[in-house]
Amino acid sequence: MYRCEKWKEKPPVLRSYDREALVSQIRAGLALRPQIEEILDGFLQAGTESVWFIGIGGTYASCMQVHTYAKHRTSLPVYCENAAEFLTTGNRQFNERALVIFSSESGTTKEMIELDAYMKERGIRRLAFVDTPGTPLAEEDEQKKVIVSRKNEQLKFFMCINYLMYCRGEFDDYAQYCENMETYLAEALAETEESADDWARRCAHDLAEFRDKHPEMPHYFAAAGNQYGAAYSYGMCYWEEQLWIRTRVVSCADFFHGMQEIIDRDTPVTLFIGEDEQRPLAERAARFLPKVCANYTVIDTAEFPLTGIRPEYRGSVSHLVMRAVCSRIDAYLEYYLRHPMTIRRYYRQFDY
Amino acid sequence: MYRCEKWKEKPPVLRSYDREALVSQIRAGLALRPQIEEILDGFLQAGTESVWFIGIGGTYASCMQVHTYAKHRTSLPVYCENAAEFLTTGNRQFNERALVIFSSESGTTKEMIELDAYMKERGIRRLAFVDTPGTPLAEEDEQKKVIVSRKNEQLKFFMCINYLMYCRGEFDDYAQYCENMETYLAEALAETEESADDWARRCAHDLAEFRDKHPEMPHYFAAAGNQYGAAYSYGMCYWEEQLWIRTRVVSCADFFHGMQEIIDRDTPVTLFIGEDEQRPLAERAARFLPKVCANYTVIDTAEFPLTGIRPEYRGSVSHLVMRAVCSRIDAYLEYYLRHPMTIRRYYRQFDY
Repeated sequence: MYRCEKWKEKPPVLRSYDREALVSQIRAGLALRPQIEEILDGFLQAGTESVWFIGIGGTYASCMQVHTYAKHRTSLPVYCENAAEFLTTGNRQFNERALVIFSSESGTTKEMIELDAYMKERGIRRLAFVDTPGTPLAEEDEQKKVIVSRKNEQLKFFMCINYLMYCRGEFDDYAQYCENMETYLAEALAETEESADDWARRCAHDLAEFRDKHPEMPHYFAAAGNQYGAAYSYGMCYWEEQLWIRTRVVSCADFFHGMQEIIDRDTPVTLFIGEDEQRPLAERAARFLPKVCANYTVIDTAEFPLTGIRPEYRGSVSHLVMRAVCSRIDAYLEYYLRHPMTIRRYYRQFDY
Repeated sequence: MYRCEKWKEKPPVLRSYDREALVSQIRAGLALRPQIEEILDGFLQAGTESVWFIGIGGTYASCMQVHTYAKHRTSLPVYCENAAEFLTTGNRQFNERALVIFSSESGTTKEMIELDAYMKERGIRRLAFVDTPGTPLAEEDEQKKVIVSRKNEQLKFFMCINYLMYCRGEFDDYAQYCENMETYLAEALAETEESADDWARRCAHDLAEFRDKHPEMPHYFAAAGNQYGAAYSYGMCYWEEQLWIRTRVVSCADFFHGMQEIIDRDTPVTLFIGEDEQRPLAERAARFLPKVCANYTVIDTAEFPLTGIRPEYRGSVSHLVMRAVCSRIDAYLEYYLRHPMTIRRYYRQFDY
């Protein structure tokens, strides 16, 4: 016989981690490039003049990330819309020369099905990334191309915009960039998960202990640039939805314009620092936090070697590096909180 | 001698309310119309091709509201940017034919001064609404017009976009709309504050009592359409910054894609329901909430008569109606929490 001892039993090192699966999953994403390029070539020839990333919930967060990445890099008009909002209000910049790009894991998301039908009716060109074959969103039509492939949502979106920029002469070193990613990214992210594992395990232990004493306290996340979408999705789709932990995500830009006031010594705050153009905004928060808080966590993607990735390309993948670190934290939070991340209280449990 | 009895002593009815001041403040905002129109005429003649609402913190929330209002109404490209993010990353759609519109209460906000300098250096046309005369942001230059006038930030932004739409032939009943607002809006908002007062007093009492028992629990706000910016600003700039209450704001669109999972019977949720195009998204949340929660508050602007305001124009001012109701709640929260809303822990207290 034996009895569980909540804090004494330790989860296994590299819990829920399979290097081979991870590496081949990322490689599979990157290997979609010829297919993506061919589809986009077709859409460009047909007269695409603007690109619309449309999502809902977590996929909307991915749209935010690619939008932040794209808007100062390309002269192509790039829009980021929430599907439910777009369907109720619309946008007058939208027209028949738009290309809509979206992604769905289930292939059955209510709002996305409605969006897809709306677009189909109007003959709008679409590229859909769908994880699950045989689902409504995985059905092609005259103006819609579908790539069925699991995971790598952000990567797929970024691959699209990178190629579109290349076609417009806005990405001179595209070939070199792709080669660098295709050679090193998968291993670099696996290496990140592995090197973050021990720290993440201790971090998750402390976070879980804190939650024991403060179950109602939200956990604060601050982030800038492509990390903002990452934090938006991490707080909402991982901690709130999958771990049932209260969170409050703020952009580093607005952090100093209201939210900072409710931080004191014991408020749990995690700051995501990436390596894109908005890094200085996160660095400002990093300088401020220790002055008023003694319960903060800083995750800085610059600490990870990302072996082989050229320094000038690191910023474009820092959201993936952050995800790698966070997935290690989640693996241990799931254990310490004894909360299988697949449980849903309400989502798809009944009609609403 | 006497001793304060926290819950037994009642704040005065219509605490911190001055009808005459409120009405004349709103009238003063609406009276800016000829000045706004003249300035915009000049900018249009000079060749304005896109409008950029840029802000930070609360003023960014106002930019969101006017952006949501505008994007499906006008073919004029309208952008909403956070100043700190724009300054670090920029946007390739931005060019010398842009018109930048911003607002500042203090006239000294760090990021906005930096933005203004950036624009001045590039000769970008700007319209600045500044509450405080004699401040850096209130200084005009060759391409910058300033309207010094207190309060009414959202109203001013909406007046700008309404006139720009009118000039483009996108607002046929502009004259009638303005007449309707100028005749009835100020009194309608005062009437709203007055009729919400008693309810708001009881609501604030309950909220304050709840906070006594659950000081760490965040208060959730869900909102759609022009109410989302209203909730973003209300949660962050009023409750977090001015009342030091933890909040978490979510759009009704994303409410169902993650956040809903951490709501249970006792989670405090306030749902803002407005009357613009996104009302159905809020109504969906209103149908869902009672099934899983017994600690919710619904504020529906449709409940207020807004005497004289034409039904078809109500949606365009529902964020102002919500603000009127919320300002009544705040007046009593300030009392029950014994937290003067002017106190700041950190903001402008030391360098960071």
